[in-house]
Amino acid sequence: NDDGITAPGMRNLVLAVKEMGEIVVVAPDSARSGHSNAITLEKPIILEEVKDYMEGVEAYKCSGTPVDCIKLAKSIILKDRKIDLCLSGVNHGANNTINVVYSGTMAAAMEASISGIPAIGFSILNFGWDANFDATRTYITKIVSHVLKNGMGDAHLLNVNVPDLPAEELKGIKLCRQAKNIWVNEFEERINPHNKKYYWMTGELSQVDKGTDNCQYYLNNGYVSIVPCIFDLTDYQAIPSLAQLESL
Amino acid sequence: NDDGITAPGMRNLVLAVKEMGEIVVVAPDSARSGHSNAITLEKPIILEEVKDYMEGVEAYKCSGTPVDCIKLAKSIILKDRKIDLCLSGVNHGANNTINVVYSGTMAAAMEASISGIPAIGFSILNFGWDANFDATRTYITKIVSHVLKNGMGDAHLLNVNVPDLPAEELKGIKLCRQAKNIWVNEFEERINPHNKKYYWMTGELSQVDKGTDNCQYYLNNGYVSIVPCIFDLTDYQAIPSLAQLESL
Repeated sequence: NDDGITAPGMRNLVLAVKEMGEIVVVAPDSARSGHSNAITLEKPIILEEVKDYMEGVEAYKCSGTPVDCIKLAKSIILKDRKIDLCLSGVNHGANNTINVVYSGTMAAAMEASISGIPAIGFSILNFGWDANFDATRTYITKIVSHVLKNGMGDAHLLNVNVPDLPAEELKGIKLCRQAKNIWVNEFEERINPHNKKYYWMTGELSQVDKGTDNCQYYLNNGYVSIVPCIFDLTDYQAIPSLAQLESL
Repeated sequence: NDDGITAPGMRNLVLAVKEMGEIVVVAPDSARSGHSNAITLEKPIILEEVKDYMEGVEAYKCSGTPVDCIKLAKSIILKDRKIDLCLSGVNHGANNTINVVYSGTMAAAMEASISGIPAIGFSILNFGWDANFDATRTYITKIVSHVLKNGMGDAHLLNVNVPDLPAEELKGIKLCRQAKNIWVNEFEERINPHNKKYYWMTGELSQVDKGTDNCQYYLNNGYVSIVPCIFDLTDYQAIPSLAQLESL
């Protein structure tokens, strides 16, 4: 995840899947929200076993980013073991729409998918550490059981977001596309005691995508959204329109 | 860029386009390589004008990430001015194939494209600060002139990589897809003076994609590669294969 190894979201994810197999947890030693696919190049990375994470669960904390965690899990911790599935999260806060590109939680899942490991990122639409994960755990158990049994079809990476609602108000799962919403009003300007300006990142998600077939629409309407994601960023459709560039 | 405001790559980018319009430079105050689309949420961001960057060029340095730079440029520095084009780089080192997801330079360009600003990221296949940018500058001038005059077709974001070759050995430009290559042997394990392990990220790019239509192939063969890129990560093709998930 990107909220760190102590996050309740990660503990709830482990609880939801603990009986399905051998679980190995690798997570940042503290929060790395908004760290995206960042990797640690300019300093060394420390990896330490956490002995008391949860009974029957092997756990490690890492001084690096969420993507570093996956790379270390694959190359160092599990190098001689087969990885069936990589799960990331449960992220404290939505990772739907454009948030997917900033999220460390989704980047960790993407990193696994880049290496050919099927991966799922889970997020709940509540930033609080006191969020209620009961309904989310139920959906995680359903989705992960299904995937372990049936695979992920043609997909390599799933982005699952769960509304912050009690189980009885959740309407089910919708497969959909990423909403084309963006952040606006992103900075709050302040003045420090030495009379210099500084900026805090903040903002609102502008719901410019009015479609009824996207993650934001379904989440607003009480559904769990699942968007399959890619890491090949090629805009195949745009290639023909750029043909003149080859003759420059 | 993600190499910081003092990088020769950025200076060469500015030199290549300086006569084409009003240039505003916003870059991290030091290197942020591998920072991807990371944003700064947990601490405030400092933005300072750099008075002596280059004659006739307005320049700012920022304590945040490459993506923070673009967000601040758009919301604070240029909020009342129209932005015609966002250029990022020239990155010191390749951003082709899977590197695109880790690159702060490409993330900066992607951030502009997310807000509807056409954007181009440039990289040279040489990590050294003493790289020779002469041929790269020539291609930047050609590509940017063309785009300012003709637009970018159906594309919103271009990833341009230039081989580290003298101008006379460069064979031209190829439009292509992102190669499906991945990093292997990614860590070097060391022991600190207190007898504890630590890890440096390193690695080799495994050229598993044997296609003759991808960025790696063309770069290996002396061409400048241009890959148009997206930020909608939806794997549209995989959606039908996942239909069963909606009935869980």
